[in-house]
Amino acid sequence: MYLKRFLRLSLFISLFTLNALPLHARANLEAGKGNVPIALQMYTLRNVGSLEEQFAMANKAGFNAVELVGDHNVSSDEMKTLLEKYNLKAISAHVQLTSLRQDSQGVVAFNNAIGNRVLIVPWIEPADRPDSAQAWKNMAQELDNLARHLKKQGMTLGYHNHDFEMKKYNGKTALEILFDHAPNLAIELDMAWVTRGGQDPARLLKKYKGRVFAVHAKDHAPIGIRNDEMNFAPAGEGILTWDEIFPAAEKAGKVWFIVEHDAPKDPYSIITTARKFLLKHVNP
Amino acid sequence: MYLKRFLRLSLFISLFTLNALPLHARANLEAGKGNVPIALQMYTLRNVGSLEEQFAMANKAGFNAVELVGDHNVSSDEMKTLLEKYNLKAISAHVQLTSLRQDSQGVVAFNNAIGNRVLIVPWIEPADRPDSAQAWKNMAQELDNLARHLKKQGMTLGYHNHDFEMKKYNGKTALEILFDHAPNLAIELDMAWVTRGGQDPARLLKKYKGRVFAVHAKDHAPIGIRNDEMNFAPAGEGILTWDEIFPAAEKAGKVWFIVEHDAPKDPYSIITTARKFLLKHVNP
Repeated sequence: MYLKRFLRLSLFISLFTLNALPLHARANLEAGKGNVPIALQMYTLRNVGSLEEQFAMANKAGFNAVELVGDHNVSSDEMKTLLEKYNLKAISAHVQLTSLRQDSQGVVAFNNAIGNRVLIVPWIEPADRPDSAQAWKNMAQELDNLARHLKKQGMTLGYHNHDFEMKKYNGKTALEILFDHAPNLAIELDMAWVTRGGQDPARLLKKYKGRVFAVHAKDHAPIGIRNDEMNFAPAGEGILTWDEIFPAAEKAGKVWFIVEHDAPKDPYSIITTARKFLLKHVNP
Repeated sequence: MYLKRFLRLSLFISLFTLNALPLHARANLEAGKGNVPIALQMYTLRNVGSLEEQFAMANKAGFNAVELVGDHNVSSDEMKTLLEKYNLKAISAHVQLTSLRQDSQGVVAFNNAIGNRVLIVPWIEPADRPDSAQAWKNMAQELDNLARHLKKQGMTLGYHNHDFEMKKYNGKTALEILFDHAPNLAIELDMAWVTRGGQDPARLLKKYKGRVFAVHAKDHAPIGIRNDEMNFAPAGEGILTWDEIFPAAEKAGKVWFIVEHDAPKDPYSIITTARKFLLKHVNP
């Protein structure tokens, strides 16, 4: 009898843990309380001179939250100083899987020092990509183990998609195989890459309600438009169905909208246009 | 009573007409009877020297049917001679909307002379693209009128999509607004562009059963793979769900599979790889 109740309680707790966004991601989100949860992925500004010049542009464009790309080749002290100088908070950092595999302690130490608690695996090289349902399950297992390991050190691990995860195996996308087998992994859904892979971002937001840390808010410009910018556009200027995405994100929990563009010719114009569009639709 | 029966009969006939593929397209398909309905879009070979060299390559790769790009700047006599020399049949031709608007008689005369009965509008320039549900309905009306006009001259008019038609207006893609308001327009569905626009090619094949003249059979290579080939791949080598596409195409009627690649580095390798894959899955 007691055993049964204990098992039921354990099941309840683990189900809750499976569905809820990791606590530290939540804590990070709370930092944005009262503010509109809009941030900038710094990859967008990688060709804008020094890190200081990039942060200055982010600040000038009105952002107060950023997602970093690794450590930008600076020390945690320098990073902290620069973030403070430009009134920016790092809400997350993209970290290559190889860095996490080889030096998770270093990654944790850097991000601890700058007050960031969310690490996102942003990319898998073509040669390293799983290409079967089983291989994706194995990847899920590795990332889930890593997520549990990092959680003990106060960090939340998440995953950011491109289009290659939209390939289906027996009718199920690799993305869903991954997320369904890695319950401790937070989710950063790139709306444009989901679409470009033939999948519906609103459907995935609904499916992963409670686990979505952020969306990457960029748009898919069709062929003939912005061909020299990888056919990406500021959110609102492409073919994505934002009138389905915003309500789905609203219901998915407190979700960051992270402005990004992979190959902007005029980064300042892109990020201010995207921010203006998001400000009209994203609630504090 | 008689009036009612007459109306019911008329309704039956018009429903049938709406759903059936135009007769001339069918006649064209019959030409492929017994053969596997696989063709090559000549745009794929546009950088392979002269038209004769292109046809020679198509023939060498095993094709006996091609889809032309306009008139390839040759006379109908020259075209007929070259097609015969390389044992190729023109099953259709891509024709720009401006050519049809300005010189439909010339287009019809050329294609009549070479024995082709299917004309496909392949592209709309960004500046000319409709961008509201109403504007797409207007485009549908124009194309439907054109289709009816051409039908009287023995020609079938069809439309080929890219990704821009996947934009939704009130939850419905521009593609569906177009096809639903142009019942006389045949359909050439580009599987890769449909997917890249976030839509499901198998769903559209099912929806337009009986109206699909052809699919463009190419694949979407995800980012990191074939970046210098517009991320297109031979059918079967990308992320498209061919195990859903083939059965849907089979049920959609007698559908041509037209091999295409927008920017092939090694066209011969691309078209032979795609043809080999299709031969395994497409029935005569």
